[in-house]
Amino acid sequence: MTAVSPLAPARFPDLPQLAGVRLAGHACGIRYSGRTDLLVVEVAPGTVAAGVFTRSLTRSAPVLWCQAGVAKGGGARLLVVNSGNANAFTGSVGAASVRRTVDKAAEVLGCRPEEVYVASTGTIGVPLPDEKITAELQAALAKLRPDAWDEAARAIMTTDTFPKGASRTAMIAGTPVTINGIAKGAGMIAPDMATMLSYVFTDAALPQSVLQALLSKGVERSFNCITVDGDTSTSDTLMLFATGRAGNAAIERADDPRLRDFKAKLDDLLTDLAQQVVKDGEGATKFVEIVVKGAMSFRAARRIGLAIGNSPLVKTAIAGEDANWGRIVMAVGKAGEKADRDRLAIRIGGVLVAAEGQMAPGYDEAPVNAHMKGRDIRIEVDIGLGRGCATVWTCDLTHAYIDINGAYRT
Amino acid sequence: MTAVSPLAPARFPDLPQLAGVRLAGHACGIRYSGRTDLLVVEVAPGTVAAGVFTRSLTRSAPVLWCQAGVAKGGGARLLVVNSGNANAFTGSVGAASVRRTVDKAAEVLGCRPEEVYVASTGTIGVPLPDEKITAELQAALAKLRPDAWDEAARAIMTTDTFPKGASRTAMIAGTPVTINGIAKGAGMIAPDMATMLSYVFTDAALPQSVLQALLSKGVERSFNCITVDGDTSTSDTLMLFATGRAGNAAIERADDPRLRDFKAKLDDLLTDLAQQVVKDGEGATKFVEIVVKGAMSFRAARRIGLAIGNSPLVKTAIAGEDANWGRIVMAVGKAGEKADRDRLAIRIGGVLVAAEGQMAPGYDEAPVNAHMKGRDIRIEVDIGLGRGCATVWTCDLTHAYIDINGAYRT
Repeated sequence: MTAVSPLAPARFPDLPQLAGVRLAGHACGIRYSGRTDLLVVEVAPGTVAAGVFTRSLTRSAPVLWCQAGVAKGGGARLLVVNSGNANAFTGSVGAASVRRTVDKAAEVLGCRPEEVYVASTGTIGVPLPDEKITAELQAALAKLRPDAWDEAARAIMTTDTFPKGASRTAMIAGTPVTINGIAKGAGMIAPDMATMLSYVFTDAALPQSVLQALLSKGVERSFNCITVDGDTSTSDTLMLFATGRAGNAAIERADDPRLRDFKAKLDDLLTDLAQQVVKDGEGATKFVEIVVKGAMSFRAARRIGLAIGNSPLVKTAIAGEDANWGRIVMAVGKAGEKADRDRLAIRIGGVLVAAEGQMAPGYDEAPVNAHMKGRDIRIEVDIGLGRGCATVWTCDLTHAYIDINGAYRT
Repeated sequence: MTAVSPLAPARFPDLPQLAGVRLAGHACGIRYSGRTDLLVVEVAPGTVAAGVFTRSLTRSAPVLWCQAGVAKGGGARLLVVNSGNANAFTGSVGAASVRRTVDKAAEVLGCRPEEVYVASTGTIGVPLPDEKITAELQAALAKLRPDAWDEAARAIMTTDTFPKGASRTAMIAGTPVTINGIAKGAGMIAPDMATMLSYVFTDAALPQSVLQALLSKGVERSFNCITVDGDTSTSDTLMLFATGRAGNAAIERADDPRLRDFKAKLDDLLTDLAQQVVKDGEGATKFVEIVVKGAMSFRAARRIGLAIGNSPLVKTAIAGEDANWGRIVMAVGKAGEKADRDRLAIRIGGVLVAAEGQMAPGYDEAPVNAHMKGRDIRIEVDIGLGRGCATVWTCDLTHAYIDINGAYRT
């Protein structure tokens, strides 16, 4: 493993226990022996789950299984996630692996197979040795604890250099509820979806239709606004489980005003997790926030932001601590959204570097160069045409990215 | 400068003299003193020019000037290209620079300003010191020679490590004609357009409408099928000048069957130049040919090929000599074109590695690993759905790309 990302938080945050959720990490030897590579999460009877999944047309067997489960109402009792092998592009063999895993898990826990959700992350194209998972399920479930959030976040890591988690509390109609989330990411991070795997749990009591609406909306300005390398995984999965144990008042609709605080906290947690994924971007040494305003719509602003955030020339310039705003202009130009060169304004680190189609009058590069030497880089682009705005997060492109990805399988 | 690309041809090809074309390189000190940074090409009276330009919405002042010239009939007498400064995102100052340059050039040569075409390549966002060009135009024109093709190709280099040129002869209705082309590229290479600058000259006598049709079509399977980093320049320009001195029979329409050989040779030359650009991709150590067939259309096939060719994960795997076909599956999945995981087949170096949604039965990695160690990598993807096919060329993503682009401006 490589060293911990310089952008990592000081420590894993405190995630409180959450009524109706127990977790455990376990070592199955799927790819390496002695490494925790299995996560099991038991959720209380009555839990419902929503999900947002990769739009890849070559999505993996576990993704197809989970999508079907969510579509059938999302009743949930168990989540089983392995790292080390993605069970992707494994054809009918892969689907059979999923089936054997959920059947065995349902038998061990005592639930229906449809209540078991699975995910696999790691190498693509290699059949999953599911017998290593099923043989250890009983032992893994025996270790379930309500306080194993850190362990859970670690169990799903692949090239991640630190475990990712976040927690928020919110009020629903006077009742406090908790939201805990974990994520894994690192490479193959790009919109639709961004992270490879993220699981969010709440003790709130909410119907699945409401959960799905909140999650689908929340992902738009969080996970779908991050990029590391523009590549999209075959396995990207974000799920939200609600155990209902908080006992809040019944809510029927996603637009119920009593959900305002919950929505805000959920969105905040999703953004927090998404940013942690970027901060563990493979080889990242700088966290880059790109604010685009004045575009014709939110989607236009996001697309422009992602064109900047995905540009290898922008990302290598940032790695080189070079305030090369010409490359930002280039990226705006190629985004395919309406833009007018002569209305464009660019700020780096708060300093106006370019406006009205040319370098800003009296532009002083010194404070911008100083900003570029920091760990947090802020780029603001005003398209000057409309009211659409979006914030996109990315990281720089460094030698370490190539080291990690040139030798991942070998 | 970095070392010459390991993919460079052994030497610059022999480009014959071409009736009605004289060229010269000159040192103006635009960015560095003593370096040849100006190309002037004089074309005989009666020459017409066609062009294909970047679709960037932040295109540069010289691009806008050339587009206008081509739109007004393309009458041409002189081409003036500088390297070291792109005169892009320079606003009204940039347009004034173009105006002063063409006015002075027209005065020195004795032609109309509209017959002067200009291009600038280099750093974006810095005003062009056009007075350095105009002061040297007379001296540059005094050096015009019909055999300075190598010098011309060198004059437009920026981060290029070798000069790029190609020549073909063709027959039009029994009359031999010559086509010579030069190009520069290296970084910021992606479709719409691919290369930053390429100029093709022929002595054929063809109306501008025919030239434009042939060039627009020819670019589709050549320059628009290459990618280095997915970034699109603000300055990309491909122009085709026809002096008419070969004296071939008059041709009125692009679909005239007497143009068949000329079309084939022009397409071949454009592909040759485009491939040379990829072979000089910044930091490239491997030349990658990606053949996509069985897609729903040519455009779908090309889009899938470019998704593979632009994927940092695919490109770093190739740099690491890792036959990581799972990443190819991922890239097909994210391309946004119709694909069915279970019909997909992938060959690397001619060896079937995956078919029908999983690893090919009896797949032997040894010959594929050997292929990955070579300089020429061939990836074939059969989508298995339709008859659309396209070939895309790219290079690997290496440490040197980051070195070059992290320190380009400084």
